[in-house]
Amino acid sequence: MNEILDFINTHRDRYIEELKQYLAIPSISALPQHAGDVRRCAEWTAEEMGRIGLANVRLIETPGNPVVYGDWLGAEGAPTILFYGHYDVQPVDPVELWESPPFEATIRDGEIYARGAADDKGQVFMHFKAIEAHLKKTGRLPVNIKIILEGEEEVGSANLDEFVKSHQTELAADVVVISDSPMFDRGIPSICYGLRGLVYCQIDLRGTKSDLHSGSFGGAVANPAMVLAQVLAQMKDRGGRIKIPGFYDDVRPLRDEERAEFKKLPFNETRYRKELGAPKLFGETGYSTLERVWARPTFEVNGLLAGFTGEGAKTVLPAVSMAKVSMRLVPDQDPDKIAKLFEDYVRKVVPKTVELKFTRMHGGRPWMTDFDNPYVQAAGRAIEKGFGKAPVFNREGGSIPVVATFQEILGLPSVLFGVGLPDENAHAPNEKLDLGNFHGGVIASAFLYDEIAQTR
Amino acid sequence: MNEILDFINTHRDRYIEELKQYLAIPSISALPQHAGDVRRCAEWTAEEMGRIGLANVRLIETPGNPVVYGDWLGAEGAPTILFYGHYDVQPVDPVELWESPPFEATIRDGEIYARGAADDKGQVFMHFKAIEAHLKKTGRLPVNIKIILEGEEEVGSANLDEFVKSHQTELAADVVVISDSPMFDRGIPSICYGLRGLVYCQIDLRGTKSDLHSGSFGGAVANPAMVLAQVLAQMKDRGGRIKIPGFYDDVRPLRDEERAEFKKLPFNETRYRKELGAPKLFGETGYSTLERVWARPTFEVNGLLAGFTGEGAKTVLPAVSMAKVSMRLVPDQDPDKIAKLFEDYVRKVVPKTVELKFTRMHGGRPWMTDFDNPYVQAAGRAIEKGFGKAPVFNREGGSIPVVATFQEILGLPSVLFGVGLPDENAHAPNEKLDLGNFHGGVIASAFLYDEIAQTR
Repeated sequence: MNEILDFINTHRDRYIEELKQYLAIPSISALPQHAGDVRRCAEWTAEEMGRIGLANVRLIETPGNPVVYGDWLGAEGAPTILFYGHYDVQPVDPVELWESPPFEATIRDGEIYARGAADDKGQVFMHFKAIEAHLKKTGRLPVNIKIILEGEEEVGSANLDEFVKSHQTELAADVVVISDSPMFDRGIPSICYGLRGLVYCQIDLRGTKSDLHSGSFGGAVANPAMVLAQVLAQMKDRGGRIKIPGFYDDVRPLRDEERAEFKKLPFNETRYRKELGAPKLFGETGYSTLERVWARPTFEVNGLLAGFTGEGAKTVLPAVSMAKVSMRLVPDQDPDKIAKLFEDYVRKVVPKTVELKFTRMHGGRPWMTDFDNPYVQAAGRAIEKGFGKAPVFNREGGSIPVVATFQEILGLPSVLFGVGLPDENAHAPNEKLDLGNFHGGVIASAFLYDEIAQTR
Repeated sequence: MNEILDFINTHRDRYIEELKQYLAIPSISALPQHAGDVRRCAEWTAEEMGRIGLANVRLIETPGNPVVYGDWLGAEGAPTILFYGHYDVQPVDPVELWESPPFEATIRDGEIYARGAADDKGQVFMHFKAIEAHLKKTGRLPVNIKIILEGEEEVGSANLDEFVKSHQTELAADVVVISDSPMFDRGIPSICYGLRGLVYCQIDLRGTKSDLHSGSFGGAVANPAMVLAQVLAQMKDRGGRIKIPGFYDDVRPLRDEERAEFKKLPFNETRYRKELGAPKLFGETGYSTLERVWARPTFEVNGLLAGFTGEGAKTVLPAVSMAKVSMRLVPDQDPDKIAKLFEDYVRKVVPKTVELKFTRMHGGRPWMTDFDNPYVQAAGRAIEKGFGKAPVFNREGGSIPVVATFQEILGLPSVLFGVGLPDENAHAPNEKLDLGNFHGGVIASAFLYDEIAQTR
């Protein structure tokens, strides 16, 4: 490994210049006017995969943006990694809040600022450079690797499930590696072993056929905005516990050792509260903040709309009201089952004075792997070698549906090894990646292939 | 009176043509681009008041739109009527829902369709024509009359209180007459003897300094949309009774004879429910629909806004939430006292997890006069002569703040004699006035001056 490390340290500056080229392509999948840029980015990605020495590189068309594929399968008898990432990026609005142009990568204070720096081009590129170092210096990799990079991650990965289903044989592997997440905190590398799932629904209530004058009719009919408030208020008790019958039935309790691990993490509640600008933290009684966010399910109102919402006063009795509601799920809650329990409960508590329309929108399964999975342990050793520090094992409150996809369709565990930071601004102006973490990530990735090879 | 009635009957068609001219002026006080039209309408109104024979006609400037003033004070020893109305109109949006252009008055099935037909130009014009008939045929009126027509009624009458206060001497009178309301139902002329008051407030809650990702942060902080729902849900019990402490303390109970009168009115709950398109009527336990709307206070949510309200799903944990809330008041509730009770209760029930901003917007006192007030009785006789039928005495759920103004500042009772209909679409597309009611109203108005003269 020494000559590989030398190679990486020697080419550090070149990596940055190449990464800048990658970040210059505005591959915004959400905006039709950037469709050409998205394809150009796929092509650039494929060319780079060829340059670093991967084989079978090609664009695989989908009904949406192409998947970029490449592999190196010369390590007979060694495990096979399926590496997943994405080459599309988020939109940049509000662009006036960027301190440097989003598609002209700029280095300030050891961080590279550009859309896609952390999410996910920078982290994909880190693996490219680790693979390159292995192949240029030794002509081989210690493991087999298959890379799939999609161009629709930022718009919901609509075609990915079908792609994975229809390429099961080609994608056969032993473990999935994904680098598309932040580490626990600056200086605290981490491996994420659990993600929450999601159920998203919309409630529409109608009280009357049209808006009414609140003077002429107020008092005679139910007000759908008030009914909505009453319905939502019945979803949680004062201790923050969700009241949907059966909601907690399948929740896997936190193990004592997990709780102990969480407690050891350097998490400062006061700093966290201040950064969020909250007068006071609030969550389910009996759990710490990290436990609430990582390992407990939630019920959140994502949107509310009824009646007059402009400046001033309008004495309207609204005809309709609307709430968008989502629940984050933890193992072993099932999104379909929870959506059904929620719908049943809403139908039960909504009074006969209004008409209810209940819409299930999307959902995703929660995911968790074991600390002691050999690949997770291998990743832990690789990170320690790249960052000089053993990683912490954390869970994440968000959802990465693709992880569940790989679990369900291919039966594969995933190693989530990210080098972003919690303040990386992934979906906001001034997205950035710490160059020290990038460099450590290239080294850790180079070790990761080695460590995974040694699991067999 | 016979020659006056002959005059009115003879000139019926001319009245409609003149009214069409009045309705052609788009005097929309809410829209700055119509400021010129509003002034043109004030001038047209003044010219018409001169044509019908009123004296001292002039525009009296205010910080906003002018008040049009005119009088006839030649009935020495007779009572003086202060007639109030307004020459401004509501906006016309959504204009595509009008079946004929809002400012080209069009007659269909005996009704004249135009913005302002009922609210309030048509009803003001009805009095103009009654005055004209008296003055043209007899050279005099049986009473003294002072007319003030404002141009800001549809935008909250911001300058009217000050105008009345600063012109108390000039406005001295015995009774106020206002024709700016609908009758109880088609074929059922009515006199309104009670109005509800109003308190309008806005509640803004802030949970965090910016919107958060519901995955990464859901469970750790209070959701201001959920807190808002919980706060609003605490404002009413399941029986529709308002839970603000002290809210009902000053409510004047319905008298048995009022309840008996209401019961006699031809009110069909099923038809009412179907016309509103409500699955089921709902209101305070222990009261009929008319009692709830006319004689009981309400608490209504007029608007709700939080988070993401567009198409689809966005997993946002909103930073802020907003509710517009208003209460209709009945005698002897005081708007300032009720606003204070409400604010105190909101401050008490809002948890410390969010920041509260409470804004009092506007308010108005409830109003009620007695059946047996001699002017009310005079109006009853006049209506019976104009419509061939004794009027019913009803209350109204809405508010006409100016009625309370005249009561408080000038110490005057008001006679509310309106010839609109409940389906007149006063603030909606296709506003209309029944021409039979207009004609009956001209005759009733002509008699009204006579009947009021005879009270002395």
